[in-house]
Amino acid sequence: MLLLLGGGVVATAILTKSKGLGGGWLLINFGWGLAVFAGVTVSYASGAHLNPAVTVGLLIAGKVPGGIGAALVYIVAQIIGAMIGALLVWLAFKRHFDEETESGTILGVFSTGPEIRSYGWNLVTEIIGTFVLVFVVIGFSRGGDPNTATPAGLAALGAIPVALLVVGIGASLGGPTGYAINPARDLGPRIMHAVLPIPHKGTSDWGYSWVPIVGPLIGGAIAGGLSYALLPIIG
Amino acid sequence: MLLLLGGGVVATAILTKSKGLGGGWLLINFGWGLAVFAGVTVSYASGAHLNPAVTVGLLIAGKVPGGIGAALVYIVAQIIGAMIGALLVWLAFKRHFDEETESGTILGVFSTGPEIRSYGWNLVTEIIGTFVLVFVVIGFSRGGDPNTATPAGLAALGAIPVALLVVGIGASLGGPTGYAINPARDLGPRIMHAVLPIPHKGTSDWGYSWVPIVGPLIGGAIAGGLSYALLPIIG
Amino acid sequence: MLLLLGGGVVATAILTKSKGLGGGWLLINFGWGLAVFAGVTVSYASGAHLNPAVTVGLLIAGKVPGGIGAALVYIVAQIIGAMIGALLVWLAFKRHFDEETESGTILGVFSTGPEIRSYGWNLVTEIIGTFVLVFVVIGFSRGGDPNTATPAGLAALGAIPVALLVVGIGASLGGPTGYAINPARDLGPRIMHAVLPIPHKGTSDWGYSWVPIVGPLIGGAIAGGLSYALLPIIG
Amino acid sequence: MLLLLGGGVVATAILTKSKGLGGGWLLINFGWGLAVFAGVTVSYASGAHLNPAVTVGLLIAGKVPGGIGAALVYIVAQIIGAMIGALLVWLAFKRHFDEETESGTILGVFSTGPEIRSYGWNLVTEIIGTFVLVFVVIGFSRGGDPNTATPAGLAALGAIPVALLVVGIGASLGGPTGYAINPARDLGPRIMHAVLPIPHKGTSDWGYSWVPIVGPLIGGAIAGGLSYALLPIIG
Repeated sequence: MLLLLGGGVVATAILTKSKGLGGGWLLINFGWGLAVFAGVTVSYASGAHLNPAVTVGLLIAGKVPGGIGAALVYIVAQIIGAMIGALLVWLAFKRHFDEETESGTILGVFSTGPEIRSYGWNLVTEIIGTFVLVFVVIGFSRGGDPNTATPAGLAALGAIPVALLVVGIGASLGGPTGYAINPARDLGPRIMHAVLPIPHKGTSDWGYSWVPIVGPLIGGAIAGGLSYALLPIIG
Repeated sequence: MLLLLGGGVVATAILTKSKGLGGGWLLINFGWGLAVFAGVTVSYASGAHLNPAVTVGLLIAGKVPGGIGAALVYIVAQIIGAMIGALLVWLAFKRHFDEETESGTILGVFSTGPEIRSYGWNLVTEIIGTFVLVFVVIGFSRGGDPNTATPAGLAALGAIPVALLVVGIGASLGGPTGYAINPARDLGPRIMHAVLPIPHKGTSDWGYSWVPIVGPLIGGAIAGGLSYALLPIIG
Repeated sequence: MLLLLGGGVVATAILTKSKGLGGGWLLINFGWGLAVFAGVTVSYASGAHLNPAVTVGLLIAGKVPGGIGAALVYIVAQIIGAMIGALLVWLAFKRHFDEETESGTILGVFSTGPEIRSYGWNLVTEIIGTFVLVFVVIGFSRGGDPNTATPAGLAALGAIPVALLVVGIGASLGGPTGYAINPARDLGPRIMHAVLPIPHKGTSDWGYSWVPIVGPLIGGAIAGGLSYALLPIIG
Repeated sequence: MLLLLGGGVVATAILTKSKGLGGGWLLINFGWGLAVFAGVTVSYASGAHLNPAVTVGLLIAGKVPGGIGAALVYIVAQIIGAMIGALLVWLAFKRHFDEETESGTILGVFSTGPEIRSYGWNLVTEIIGTFVLVFVVIGFSRGGDPNTATPAGLAALGAIPVALLVVGIGASLGGPTGYAINPARDLGPRIMHAVLPIPHKGTSDWGYSWVPIVGPLIGGAIAGGLSYALLPIIG
């Protein structure tokens, strides 16, 4: 299951890659959304989450069956999955990495960074972005008639709303911090960046690394708590 | 419920934000559509509307259960929701607002404005755009088999057509007036623009502010009336 | 019903408009697809078609209930609908038309034209494009289980595949002729272009006007005939 | 059935075309995804596959009913279909091909080629890309409730996830090799490129042609084998 999850996150991390390469890549937000879509589809069968912030939010909303223990296993799996993903990206673009001399570009392929460095406000941006993501994802799970089965062949469509949501958040809040909104997606590739033998790779910017971890976790927790509080009122 | 609605409109207003920041933001129409998508999804459970023009259209078509009283509550909630959204946008982009010196750009993040200022024709554009939106939204509610429950997991897909519609209207009628097609979306953020302590923010352009309020309401009313008149004919 | 149809095609024609205005409009193919989406949704309830080529294809495939008489009524309604649409576009962009001095741009808002003028090959391009459209649209109507009702709220999703298809054809075959692939969509607005009092509008290019009428009709007829011939083989 | 399949792949190959023509084509990844969408929809009824790598993957996962014999028939049909598609593209853009003098552009319309020529690493890129495609496609077929029939009218939606997936892979791995991820899609048009009487067409680059054949087949086989191995564990 761990590897399966890894396979899904591969696609996710892959797109970060093209960001660095691109220059002219206009559809980058889109790409991320689609990567999330692929990841969610693959992990659908095993009930896995792809984002520690979503896991934390669902945990607080009381929607993680296995409780805090299962949540921790999910989160470790998410980070390892993101690392495997970053590794495959590196392999797929091996020659392009070898020829790249701009260390900032290389790091940008792996991890996020702020446009205007200001840890406090960067944190606020990540909190708001993740809050919107987790709040709406929990909203998804309320609609529909649970007694009606999803027709075969349409099940994969269930992943589309989440993907669209990530695109939407990226298009809106992507500006200031590159929207991690997922601690695993930032930390896993950053570890690989530090480990892999890439020429001209430069620093892994560990000074900023806590922001896309702490921010999403706080945002996810607020969303989970608010959903939990509102549930009795709005059903 | 008010706050829930606010949470949804947040995402909407957020994207206006990136408009100001962007410059190179090509997917802005898309972003708006996705914001609407997130908003509709969140408000789905509570049956709330996000747009006073839609509320008025449905009211005239005889499809608002609570009648005119409920409609007024919806509209006030929509404006407050849009204000909360604009506030969160300001927080998420705090440092970028601080560094922005172009007052027109700052206002553009909050509210719409015409390319060629001509109140009469700007009004016509908003009326036509909102008419198409509300007419098609009412059309959505006619299709399908009401005896068949929506499968769980696919419920959020119901919000996709509305989002696509907003993208389509934006791509077509966005040129002349920046397509408010939603009085709350324009008025709420404009109030926040007037209130928030943003350096270099300049005027809130209240002279134009009535156009994106009156236009969408007229357009929505026409669409609602026409639907009501056609209903006996086409079922 | 006629007017309802017109309302749908409005949105379609509208987007041609932004083409003329745009310059920087990158999402124009998308816009068209979304316009088709809105149109199909609105006309869904009345069983109307939006495209004479599709009507002809379905007629030949034996799928138009009312036979040739109903098909003719549909086609006349489609042309009138496209004319109303072009009129509304002109109203929405009135001031922009007044300021536009490039006659080619103005005509481009209403009707299509070839990049390389060569009536024979332009005709081939339109035939192939329309063939793909009608052939796949007929393919849509074969899938699925007709005994299972579409859940309420998801009915509008049925219009999405058609919209995506139009986007796909536009992205591929749009280059040479601007892909009319719909006689009504080209003829209706061209008539309005000849009639409306637009300054600097220039010629309506009637010399080319038969290509986007004859080409789509031939393409639709081939697709209908081929579907009819293959049906006994593939069920 | 062969011709039907060809009709579907037409649309696919068509979009390669616009790549050569484009220059400013930003939505090219999207175009490919939509072409796949059209192809999948058309071939849905006959249960045909469009991609030899998917066929091989499903064969190894034990999901091709007719076994290795049926798989070979599929693959030959896929190549012939891609050739017919390339032929129709050539006809639709006949005059544009006649005026094009850049031989690299003409080949690019038909087949893929690497940015940095390095057969080994290009192979790795194609293997990873196809692995993701086939692994997720097999994942699609696991979800959903097979006892619930797909509602009529929504069946075509089942093709959307596959199309989105191709867009996602293209946006991420398209950089290095132009992502064939489909041996038929590369080989068929390359044969037509060698055969058709196009002025200034230059070499067909057969030296690279084995990479987009062998890479996808290996990637598809790995994905099929891994799915087969994981199936008992995750159901």
